[in-house]
Amino acid sequence: MHVLALLDGTLADPTVPLLRVDDLGVMRGDGIFETILVVDGKPRELGPHLDRLARSAAMMDLPAPDRAAWERACQVVLDNWTGRPEHVLKLVMTRGVEGTGTPTEFALGMEIAPAVLRQRAEGIAAVTLERGFGPDVAERAPWLLLGAKSLSYAVNMAAVREAARRGADDVVFLASDGTVLEGPTSTVVAVHEGVLRTPPSTLGILPGTTQHALFRAAERTGRNVKVEPLTVPDLHAADGVFLCSSVRTVTRVHTLDGTRLTDSSDLHREMVELYQSEYQR
Amino acid sequence: MHVLALLDGTLADPTVPLLRVDDLGVMRGDGIFETILVVDGKPRELGPHLDRLARSAAMMDLPAPDRAAWERACQVVLDNWTGRPEHVLKLVMTRGVEGTGTPTEFALGMEIAPAVLRQRAEGIAAVTLERGFGPDVAERAPWLLLGAKSLSYAVNMAAVREAARRGADDVVFLASDGTVLEGPTSTVVAVHEGVLRTPPSTLGILPGTTQHALFRAAERTGRNVKVEPLTVPDLHAADGVFLCSSVRTVTRVHTLDGTRLTDSSDLHREMVELYQSEYQR
Repeated sequence: MHVLALLDGTLADPTVPLLRVDDLGVMRGDGIFETILVVDGKPRELGPHLDRLARSAAMMDLPAPDRAAWERACQVVLDNWTGRPEHVLKLVMTRGVEGTGTPTEFALGMEIAPAVLRQRAEGIAAVTLERGFGPDVAERAPWLLLGAKSLSYAVNMAAVREAARRGADDVVFLASDGTVLEGPTSTVVAVHEGVLRTPPSTLGILPGTTQHALFRAAERTGRNVKVEPLTVPDLHAADGVFLCSSVRTVTRVHTLDGTRLTDSSDLHREMVELYQSEYQR
Repeated sequence: MHVLALLDGTLADPTVPLLRVDDLGVMRGDGIFETILVVDGKPRELGPHLDRLARSAAMMDLPAPDRAAWERACQVVLDNWTGRPEHVLKLVMTRGVEGTGTPTEFALGMEIAPAVLRQRAEGIAAVTLERGFGPDVAERAPWLLLGAKSLSYAVNMAAVREAARRGADDVVFLASDGTVLEGPTSTVVAVHEGVLRTPPSTLGILPGTTQHALFRAAERTGRNVKVEPLTVPDLHAADGVFLCSSVRTVTRVHTLDGTRLTDSSDLHREMVELYQSEYQR
């Protein structure tokens, strides 16, 4: 089921088209989005997601999102949701119809895809794929929109199809020098000797809301966390490699480029409990 | 005015939304497009544009476009066009609503934007901007979709905004080693001592239909053409630098990174005549 809310706080029929063909979101993938997990009617990390939406908007010279209106639209979706207790809440803002200067904005409640639930439970095989960029280009070339969550995700989707062709489920992107970047829709976290490590967003990757929540919980419970560059050998040497994303949460990578990684089942359970503890206090 | 035709050959109201919010073209910029110039009811380079649409579809694992249906949809737009004799014909194919496997496809007739006509007549100032990729990544990493005309054009649009911030009209993208690539919506052609030169598409750039037409005309009239890498010094040393695209056709770059280039007004007139001669035979 889908529940669609507009920014004026009204519901709309999700099966009725909403976007004109000349919407720049359609014509040019010109817009931004966020994907949020909702559990028992509560959106997780709504504040950080709205912060990131605002940051993406600024990076793309879009109008600043109206935070109160977004919060209201989200609440309308939540109030009208009658599906499973755990679901997806997607926020989309496009540049709107060319020439109008009025963004197209909506919040959409959706069920979680069965494949996502399966991967969350069973873990995934990932492959490393080159992202084509150097590790230092993001700050030098802001027009590349690295670190903005834009609607122009065709490459991310193509990378996941390439993973499937290689018999895997997901991707770890590498910079041109081999530095670990991120997944197409996730943040990489490697745990080694009890220390949680993730690459810095200065590499041109998206700051991860789920990774942030996990690190917050880790710090709260006295664990060490490090934000520093990782290499592929670091991943192979780790006690556990995890891809963090809002809906799939903390997903265990059991196989990397066809090589079975150290069994991290127990560590995975610990990381998931750590992440969940942020919402059970 | 807009004229919208669907692939079944019917007209649709372009002011009525056509795309659902869960169309992957909206959600993920996951689709392809072509932009065609129509003059006096005749679409220019329709065959090469449909060839390129098919190539983009293959690169993105989309269903092969139904060529006859596309030709029919184009004709419906042309038959119903009552605007200016010179206009835009846009073809869009998205992956469609998630899970359906049915693409969303349409052809749209639109007026040419006044800025485009002005730039075509008066020429443009361009700036060089880093594209972030090495010159050799395209063939090695097909998942980057370099050379596919995808709907994920947010970076191209951001680059043009960056040009505007620098007081220019358009962009010449450079590879990380400084090799000249392409414009965000155009192909670079430099003319030096009578020889027309353009970078090879193996660099990960879109094969340009207008550049092809120009080179075809050049070869027909005994001129020399070369498809080979260009550098920024090559552009500064050229007798003329042109950005070729379907609607703006052959546009003169009069200023590059704030430096006035050699006056190519006469050469520009010659190139435009050459290009036009392809359609006047």
